[in-house]
Amino acid sequence: MLNEKLKEVLNHEGALSITSWSNNNANVTNTWNSYVRISDRGTLLIPAAGMTSTQADVAVNNRLKLTMGSKEVMGTIGMGAGFFIEGTATFLDDGEDFNMMKENFPFLKRVLEVTPIIVKQTI
Amino acid sequence: MLNEKLKEVLNHEGALSITSWSNNNANVTNTWNSYVRISDRGTLLIPAAGMTSTQADVAVNNRLKLTMGSKEVMGTIGMGAGFFIEGTATFLDDGEDFNMMKENFPFLKRVLEVTPIIVKQTI
Repeated sequence: MLNEKLKEVLNHEGALSITSWSNNNANVTNTWNSYVRISDRGTLLIPAAGMTSTQADVAVNNRLKLTMGSKEVMGTIGMGAGFFIEGTATFLDDGEDFNMMKENFPFLKRVLEVTPIIVKQTI
Repeated sequence: MLNEKLKEVLNHEGALSITSWSNNNANVTNTWNSYVRISDRGTLLIPAAGMTSTQADVAVNNRLKLTMGSKEVMGTIGMGAGFFIEGTATFLDDGEDFNMMKENFPFLKRVLEVTPIIVKQTI
């Protein structure tokens, strides 16, 4: 699901948005494109330091919507490619993926793992 | 409310996220930082071509949450600055601001105007 174009976007720096929602309120947090790793299972691994609102939402509704883009990648109508990913969220606090992420991002407290359900190139 | 650091972020290209929500569902769309204009009233003007989900949400709940960032701007803990803006949304389809935006972005159908209520530097 996570194709080469998406990986190309992630290889360009940018602010990636993470939207969660529950109880008729939405919360948005961010990470940098360069902080995202793709696991062998095809999930996105994202370092989480704060993300307390996201985690509280996920406890009620584990769906997330992510967006990311780069004007430096060729998109569908010229320069500028963007992606929308909807998926389910889990927070990891141990295991192999947690340890690998912790080594790369010592500041993290947990790892947000997103299993993609919908991946859409938006531009 | 829209300070110089925020303007500096907007002057660096990136994908800006726009989250709307209603009926226990959230929708996220994007624009490029370079597409945002700041009106004399201190509102954000954003070209809208599609944005049908956003507009449907706004008809029920006119709150929006925007995020934007650039790794090339000095932030609070090093390189990388990001902002969160919560505000109210209106869609313009005529008037001086609409005409100015239409001149700059001929592809737009409406202009999304966001009146900021909360502006927070997140990093």
